[in-house]
Amino acid sequence: MDFGSILLMLVVLFVLAAAGSKIFAHFGVPGLIGEIVVGIIIANLAVGDWSFLGALGIDMGSGASQNYDVLYLFAQLGVIFLLFSIGLATKVKELLSIGKAAMTVATMGVLIPLIAGFALIEVYDGNINHALFLGAALVATSVGITARVIKDMNVLDTKEARIIIGAAVIDDVEGMVVLAIVVGMTSYGDFSVSNVILIAAEALVFVVLSIAAALWVVPRIYKYFEKRREGRPVKSKGTNSGINVLILAIAVCLGFSWFADMIGLAAIIGAFLGGMLLAEYAQEWKLEEKMESITALFISFFFLNVGMQVDLGSLATVSAVLLAVIVILIAIATKYVGCSFGARLGDRSLSKESRNIIGFGMVPRGEVGLIVAAMGLASGAMSSELYGAVIIMAVATTIIAPPLFVWAFSKKYPQCKIA
Amino acid sequence: MDFGSILLMLVVLFVLAAAGSKIFAHFGVPGLIGEIVVGIIIANLAVGDWSFLGALGIDMGSGASQNYDVLYLFAQLGVIFLLFSIGLATKVKELLSIGKAAMTVATMGVLIPLIAGFALIEVYDGNINHALFLGAALVATSVGITARVIKDMNVLDTKEARIIIGAAVIDDVEGMVVLAIVVGMTSYGDFSVSNVILIAAEALVFVVLSIAAALWVVPRIYKYFEKRREGRPVKSKGTNSGINVLILAIAVCLGFSWFADMIGLAAIIGAFLGGMLLAEYAQEWKLEEKMESITALFISFFFLNVGMQVDLGSLATVSAVLLAVIVILIAIATKYVGCSFGARLGDRSLSKESRNIIGFGMVPRGEVGLIVAAMGLASGAMSSELYGAVIIMAVATTIIAPPLFVWAFSKKYPQCKIA
Repeated sequence: MDFGSILLMLVVLFVLAAAGSKIFAHFGVPGLIGEIVVGIIIANLAVGDWSFLGALGIDMGSGASQNYDVLYLFAQLGVIFLLFSIGLATKVKELLSIGKAAMTVATMGVLIPLIAGFALIEVYDGNINHALFLGAALVATSVGITARVIKDMNVLDTKEARIIIGAAVIDDVEGMVVLAIVVGMTSYGDFSVSNVILIAAEALVFVVLSIAAALWVVPRIYKYFEKRREGRPVKSKGTNSGINVLILAIAVCLGFSWFADMIGLAAIIGAFLGGMLLAEYAQEWKLEEKMESITALFISFFFLNVGMQVDLGSLATVSAVLLAVIVILIAIATKYVGCSFGARLGDRSLSKESRNIIGFGMVPRGEVGLIVAAMGLASGAMSSELYGAVIIMAVATTIIAPPLFVWAFSKKYPQCKIA
Repeated sequence: MDFGSILLMLVVLFVLAAAGSKIFAHFGVPGLIGEIVVGIIIANLAVGDWSFLGALGIDMGSGASQNYDVLYLFAQLGVIFLLFSIGLATKVKELLSIGKAAMTVATMGVLIPLIAGFALIEVYDGNINHALFLGAALVATSVGITARVIKDMNVLDTKEARIIIGAAVIDDVEGMVVLAIVVGMTSYGDFSVSNVILIAAEALVFVVLSIAAALWVVPRIYKYFEKRREGRPVKSKGTNSGINVLILAIAVCLGFSWFADMIGLAAIIGAFLGGMLLAEYAQEWKLEEKMESITALFISFFFLNVGMQVDLGSLATVSAVLLAVIVILIAIATKYVGCSFGARLGDRSLSKESRNIIGFGMVPRGEVGLIVAAMGLASGAMSSELYGAVIIMAVATTIIAPPLFVWAFSKKYPQCKIA
């Protein structure tokens, strides 16, 4: 194992990703898009026999180079830790009490893009794998981006913002279930009804058991240890307990990820549910801060790798550009329509302006869509043309949605401006 | 790449290491010893064709299994992040102002074990590689263990404690220089005088340049950015700047490690110097906390791997046991004599009791000695018998020293007891 070569690759990629993120953030665009763009550039940077990736010892053919294996491992761990962190921010009680409106917004916002995406690709190339993965990739709103904008506008205490955050979280869970079903269907390679039911049942049982554990089992274990600790002198608390809960969190994250993978679901679903399991205590244990450091080490490699899969050559055709434009339009239109219709269904008292805010607020796709696309490409269930279209869609919705959202918000609440 | 199998290995090893650490810590023994013991047990757990490591997909033959490559990579990254953290706690100004006593304690405490260790093995088996590595492995006091005991006894404000901490830090730097020289000499495989001078010069230039950069370059860059920030609105500060300094720290850590490796020194030396470079701002940027999470993820794999290299079979001979006992006695005696003599040289006013405290306080060997031994074994410069003896020495000094130290301390300061 050539450790020096691995160190060189890690530091060069890490610094380039940081630079890309910084430059894009400077212009108000989420940093992850900068990392994807850096990935696209370095993967397509080649002169004759020389290529940038080759100079770093990276050969993306499967199993072809140890350096790419390390990059891929770091990308996978990054996305696992990211989903675990999102899980840590998802308190089950709040999730269940968020009310009907968030639920209908999330569900309509999942169903309409899923169906439209599926239908589009069934018509376009008739491949059911492609259609399923595109549908799944259109589903999940990026909680991170939406929450960030709401925080920047300082409107967290409005009804619309609360519905959006709640819906974005539920939407993530539903997106996970959709992803679980899609991955299960395509990796088993057959579409029998019993198979779909099995995978859906597995995903649902896993989700329900995790929610039940978060509600009833974890609090009891917590109280048991709390009582034992009260009996003892405080001596051993100090600095050590901070590390102990982190060790617990890492073990839960890796363990749940492995379990999900083992039963045929995506590892990230396990990571998300593992995070949700500990969400109630995440703040007290400062887990989000601690996991943030670990995620920061790995996650850039995920977005770099996302970009590195984009083959600019395969996008340079009229049909590819057309496909990307159609996917972007469908992504925006179906999410907007689904969520504003869902808001009407769930809460008749919402005005048209409020429904506008909710519709635009849910448009950005981010991490989860990209994860779905990356999984689809890796399993061969997505063509590189479609993959490119999804990446461009994620980038485009993330750039287009915030201005629309800010505009809709300031129409109803003229006093609120971006800080 | 079988991601599921890697996840399973990571979670099983991580949980076992945590359990070992917890159990040993419960009996007042530093947790890292529990992790090493777990490593020894699992590596020697085999029944017929079945072995514990085999069941996890680990084959320790070089390049033989992807799972072991991942374990090894995590171990290496763990020790790099650990040394970076030690560097972050090493402020250059304090290091330079700590005075003559700490310097002579450190230097005598390095020279005498080095010479004695070298002489012992030259007499024992006449192999100069073995002799050099054993000498180097006996050099470095474990700052972590010593500091932990001082903190637990609440005696950080005594003169003796300040000298010990200062000396332990200087001792680390000197240990790094010794390691650099030894690694350079053995990896080039020849012992010409010019070669030794070259490596020593490289190590010294690297150390001196890093100290100079920490004193004069980094503060200027810091002030430049500080001024630029003052000119701007505070808007972009918020949560993001926390991640930005972490990104900077990770980049410095990986970059310095790669650079040290590239010029023929050990990667960990670069990591340590990189940490020292940022030490002045580590507190303000909360870098130690942030790096602690990252180190916690990786470092158990290092101590597990240390234990996994111990072949119990090769230690089950009279000569091996005898060697281990002699190495332990030499490790304790030479450090005690070197440091108490160094204390006398550096500060004539120190009483015999104070010199006792300092002598015993410097006895524990830990991380650095284990790192040296692991590097020696990997490069073939150490026999597995000698390696086993060093591991047992590190474990034994860590267990034996704290009680002696506490006893010496409470003789001079009867009011101080372990908290």
